[in-house]
Amino acid sequence: MDPLEALEHLGLVLPSPPAPGGNYTSAKTAGNIVYLSGVVSQTADGILTGIVGLDRSIDEGYAAARACALLQLAVLQKHLGSLSKVRGILTVNGYVNSVAGFAESPKVINGASDLFLAVFGEAGRHVRAAIGVSGLPRHALVELQMTVEV
Amino acid sequence: MDPLEALEHLGLVLPSPPAPGGNYTSAKTAGNIVYLSGVVSQTADGILTGIVGLDRSIDEGYAAARACALLQLAVLQKHLGSLSKVRGILTVNGYVNSVAGFAESPKVINGASDLFLAVFGEAGRHVRAAIGVSGLPRHALVELQMTVEV
Amino acid sequence: MDPLEALEHLGLVLPSPPAPGGNYTSAKTAGNIVYLSGVVSQTADGILTGIVGLDRSIDEGYAAARACALLQLAVLQKHLGSLSKVRGILTVNGYVNSVAGFAESPKVINGASDLFLAVFGEAGRHVRAAIGVSGLPRHALVELQMTVEV
Repeated sequence: MDPLEALEHLGLVLPSPPAPGGNYTSAKTAGNIVYLSGVVSQTADGILTGIVGLDRSIDEGYAAARACALLQLAVLQKHLGSLSKVRGILTVNGYVNSVAGFAESPKVINGASDLFLAVFGEAGRHVRAAIGVSGLPRHALVELQMTVEV
Repeated sequence: MDPLEALEHLGLVLPSPPAPGGNYTSAKTAGNIVYLSGVVSQTADGILTGIVGLDRSIDEGYAAARACALLQLAVLQKHLGSLSKVRGILTVNGYVNSVAGFAESPKVINGASDLFLAVFGEAGRHVRAAIGVSGLPRHALVELQMTVEV
Repeated sequence: MDPLEALEHLGLVLPSPPAPGGNYTSAKTAGNIVYLSGVVSQTADGILTGIVGLDRSIDEGYAAARACALLQLAVLQKHLGSLSKVRGILTVNGYVNSVAGFAESPKVINGASDLFLAVFGEAGRHVRAAIGVSGLPRHALVELQMTVEV
């Protein structure tokens, strides 16, 4: 299935890709790998903020990771012209704004991983690391950095 | 020396590679680079948990980083069919579950670096970053993410 | 403009590249990508230490990120023989030693991004992630890990 069709089946629409907040770019290609800047969790209503284990639940973290993944698809769509050029999702690094000692970051980052599988099928399966950190830009709940094969 | 022989000389046996805890994969190849998911410190006795500077020492952290490195070799062996296909270790990112202000993460991650040198010789020499973080999956002491050239 | 000339115009001189503090290397090339180890913020006067939001300001963080970027250029110059071989800066991961909840790491890591743009022009524009962490080697204020296209 075409990735955009898959998104439509999920009831999802690509958001506007976020603008970089400094002298950097959202996406850069070297060889057949696209490197993507970290994006912070955001929807049309604004930044998804907070700290898992303090004022946010794992489910809210999952939704924030999914929002990050959707933003990265929007960045890719703009960078590549078409999501059909994606050969596979390669790597995902997920950073979770969380209390010290938080041990469930994989359950949070599953929000991104599950979406990539739903959109790209097995080609969306990637390697990843999920890390709990003490602070993210704009108080975001999740930040997601990744690479994609084209 | 063959990597498996080198491991035998060190008195080490490859463990079972850990199963991914979500919709991701342990290893993925693009071109001649193998990308590996982060693995958390674990032995046959279970997860090596704790926080360096609180209830764990730097030496315990070193052993945990070494355990991560051994797990990654097991992942590679399964993914490649043979460790002899490894041309070199390329990058290592080591995350250390540690108290705020912990400054000795390089001494911890040396546990991984030293093993890669012992197993692959100079080809095992890699670039790396060592970072202190506030939380890791399953309360693990160390998480290790890496790339390998084949 | 030649990168070294650009540095001279900025009134900057390449420092000595830092020596790795363990069994790793500062730079390793695979294909046409140079992978660089994380470097911690340092000048000729020593390590730039501290914690943004506690005893250091965003401006001090910015200067520390710029110092990291300059060190990486010194590493590249030694590794490549000439900075003219740099085709572009590809990725930058900036880790900011900061208090829990710190939300301004992008403003800190701009210290590195702005320097790369000033030295390489548009070729210096990169993807990046800025992360607040709870501890860095040698109590450094900033650590910068990156890849470069040659």
